[in-house]
Amino acid sequence: MAQPDEDRWPSRLVDMKAVDDLLRCAICFDYFNIAMIIPQCSHNYCSLCIRKFLSYKTQCPTCCVTVTEPDLKNNRVLDELVKSFSSARNHMLRLTLDSPPMSPLS
Amino acid sequence: MAQPDEDRWPSRLVDMKAVDDLLRCAICFDYFNIAMIIPQCSHNYCSLCIRKFLSYKTQCPTCCVTVTEPDLKNNRVLDELVKSFSSARNHMLRLTLDSPPMSPLS
Ligand SMILES: [Zn+2]
Ligand SMILES: [Zn+2]
Ligand SMILES: [Zn+2]
Ligand SMILES: [Zn+2]
Repeated sequence: MAQPDEDRWPSRLVDMKAVDDLLRCAICFDYFNIAMIIPQCSHNYCSLCIRKFLSYKTQCPTCCVTVTEPDLKNNRVLDELVKSFSSARNHMLRLTLDSPPMSPLS
Repeated sequence: MAQPDEDRWPSRLVDMKAVDDLLRCAICFDYFNIAMIIPQCSHNYCSLCIRKFLSYKTQCPTCCVTVTEPDLKNNRVLDELVKSFSSARNHMLRLTLDSPPMSPLS
């Protein structure tokens, strides 16, 4: 359960951390990179992460349902969300650091 | 292309509007309510919206690929994103209205 950017979210933007978490792959913990959905269980992973995993074990790493590579389908809205959300995130963090009231970061 | 909440996003949070747009159904323009993905084209709609549409015409309303009801799969991460994002959004808008610098809303 690594959360590499946890401390980058200031307390006033704590609700955004839940959104951030949902846009991360449970294998590499980074934002989805070419998100693939497993239609039988609705779990998502980066294309490369899940293909590597399936070559070793033909199941979903989260819920263990049986999966083979042809089951995987692109979940393109997640790629678009990652793109928009990460620029929004950078913008918000900049605003938060720039704005005078409460910035506990040194 | 109705954007019912467009004017609710203050200019300093404009990047978030792109995220907001991606979490809305292209049939009802509201946030996804039980999001379903069409695996062949990766487009998403509310369960009720797309089922109603398919009963009238068996194609994706966005890209016109042939679709029947059994093709639809849950895209649960979108339901979770809607939940987290809308509370984050309300929190952010409250912060923006409360914070002294620049609030053009009367
Ligand atoms: Zn990954
Ligand atoms: Zn799964
Ligand atoms: Zn809808
Ligand atoms: Zn489509």
